[in-house]
Amino acid sequence: MNIDQLIEKIEPLDREAMQKAARRLNNLTKPVGSLGVLEDLVIQLAGITGDYRPRVENKTVIVMAGDHGVVEEGVSIALQSVTPQMVYNFLNGGAAINVLARSAGAQVRVVDVGVADPDLSGPGLISRKVRLGTANMTKGAAMSREEALQAIEAGVEAAEVEIDKGVNLLAVGEMGIGNTTPSSAILAVYSAEPLTVIVGRGTGLDDDGVQRKKRAIETALMVNKPDPADPLDVLAKVGGLEIAGMAGIILGSAARKVPVVIDGFITGAAALIAYKLAPPTKDYMIASHLSEEPGHKIVLEAIGLEPMLRMRMRLGEGTGAALAFNIIEAATRIMSEMATFEEAGVKMD
Amino acid sequence: MNIDQLIEKIEPLDREAMQKAARRLNNLTKPVGSLGVLEDLVIQLAGITGDYRPRVENKTVIVMAGDHGVVEEGVSIALQSVTPQMVYNFLNGGAAINVLARSAGAQVRVVDVGVADPDLSGPGLISRKVRLGTANMTKGAAMSREEALQAIEAGVEAAEVEIDKGVNLLAVGEMGIGNTTPSSAILAVYSAEPLTVIVGRGTGLDDDGVQRKKRAIETALMVNKPDPADPLDVLAKVGGLEIAGMAGIILGSAARKVPVVIDGFITGAAALIAYKLAPPTKDYMIASHLSEEPGHKIVLEAIGLEPMLRMRMRLGEGTGAALAFNIIEAATRIMSEMATFEEAGVKMD
Repeated sequence: MNIDQLIEKIEPLDREAMQKAARRLNNLTKPVGSLGVLEDLVIQLAGITGDYRPRVENKTVIVMAGDHGVVEEGVSIALQSVTPQMVYNFLNGGAAINVLARSAGAQVRVVDVGVADPDLSGPGLISRKVRLGTANMTKGAAMSREEALQAIEAGVEAAEVEIDKGVNLLAVGEMGIGNTTPSSAILAVYSAEPLTVIVGRGTGLDDDGVQRKKRAIETALMVNKPDPADPLDVLAKVGGLEIAGMAGIILGSAARKVPVVIDGFITGAAALIAYKLAPPTKDYMIASHLSEEPGHKIVLEAIGLEPMLRMRMRLGEGTGAALAFNIIEAATRIMSEMATFEEAGVKMD
Repeated sequence: MNIDQLIEKIEPLDREAMQKAARRLNNLTKPVGSLGVLEDLVIQLAGITGDYRPRVENKTVIVMAGDHGVVEEGVSIALQSVTPQMVYNFLNGGAAINVLARSAGAQVRVVDVGVADPDLSGPGLISRKVRLGTANMTKGAAMSREEALQAIEAGVEAAEVEIDKGVNLLAVGEMGIGNTTPSSAILAVYSAEPLTVIVGRGTGLDDDGVQRKKRAIETALMVNKPDPADPLDVLAKVGGLEIAGMAGIILGSAARKVPVVIDGFITGAAALIAYKLAPPTKDYMIASHLSEEPGHKIVLEAIGLEPMLRMRMRLGEGTGAALAFNIIEAATRIMSEMATFEEAGVKMD
């Protein structure tokens, strides 16, 4: 895959469609701007799609799964075997993301970009395994640059397959035991905040665990010296395969002018990589919730995204993004179904 | 109506159902507590309904409409005639609340408890007009205690009609030009915050308008001397008919063990009155969004409610509450559709 060609395809938003959307919103029977973020969403979607009355009725969450060699350092309370077990749970429809996606009328796709289980398979699984989990980043690069590109490509293609089927709203989700550690490392490269502020408890680390995680990240950054000016270098050295895959989904969606909903902290790290690779991707992103993981707020601010939901969630999988689907759809219906002042015979002043 | 009898019917939540719900949530395939507010919602709904796997598929927003004599003081940029015009817009399905309720699969009911238009009528309108708007509260009580009780009763009955039809999730919404003024006056009675902090721009007052609004509230409080120990006195003297109606919906829902979703600032003032009349109503309330109106945060804190959505909305009508419907429904589906660790064969550690 030529990533530079992909990035070149990502265009700025359609200002004309956005202005047309804003004009119509101002004629609807409500005080100007009083629907806040719903109005912003309509304008953003108009800019993305070029249609001032955008529609998003066809929605998919793509869950990228991968493992992390750094779990050797004791950075997670959960066993690495939980990653493939949860992938089977996704395929069987029993996980939180399945329920929340169904509830929003959305599909779930699951991509194995690097689960450390050679036998992982099952009906519906998209197998794009680049390697059996990353290497332990405290001892060298998590993966090669070529492997990071392969994982990005898996994400781009997964997005394209959905878009070709008519999906017009995508979300990124993930599964990978240990993946708040590489996410924190990526954020540490790009944020002025110290690790003490960035690093959180993941699925439930105690204080000692948080210290181990912090030390592992410090070591990984020292050993690998990732270059902030080269986001692919950061991704390969201290990132993860599913993080790369989600960056690919974001790049692929933006290149095809499809909005993409960001979930929690790990998806935020992927969004940060996509944003650093191609700043215009930001305009194609929609933030959903603010996670309990402390780095999430920092990573969203680094990109310039504002989350809608405060649910105190910290599960990942795309669960917060799925909750935002109905809100985004509701925003588009405001535009297509609300009466104008003239139509309703309402005179404000 | 005997309001004391109604209040006596409001029971504390079912602790046993809540514990049973919490136990099952902890067995579902996710880190304990990682679905945050979604889990809290399930536990609350279990406590309200007595069913540890609660359902909320039948949803209605009841919009209470009323006018305010205090608009004579120049406290709103919109004409009073907008209230009946918007009621017709609701009846025709063209307002924001119609669109957002439809989008959430919910019904809208509109109750005229005191619109200052004697001819207001139309298919679907529930006419329970107590009087043609309140009196100007800067010159005396907004309404009599008896009128406040009548408006509460209209709300109780509107809730009961819906509940009798099988509705298991209600929301309160409102329409009434000028109604952030009585809402601010009610909050001022119960909050230590000064009016400078409480009073906001409503539909879009400029600085002079905000000063007029502040002075009107100061005068109303001085002239009427509402008694904080007597919430009905506060409601009658510096409240509003639709605010009383919504307090009635909340009391009626709680008495029938049905959860009720609170919307923005004005619904918050109604919730505060209901809470002061009957503190156990709080456990039946679900906060939806945090409005741009500054008093909203204060009123929610005064009751002890935590909003889920940050949409920068300031429209009212029940719009924020309607946006929360799908999230609440999604929470209940977590409980009924997610696999347990045992079912999914997932072993965390």
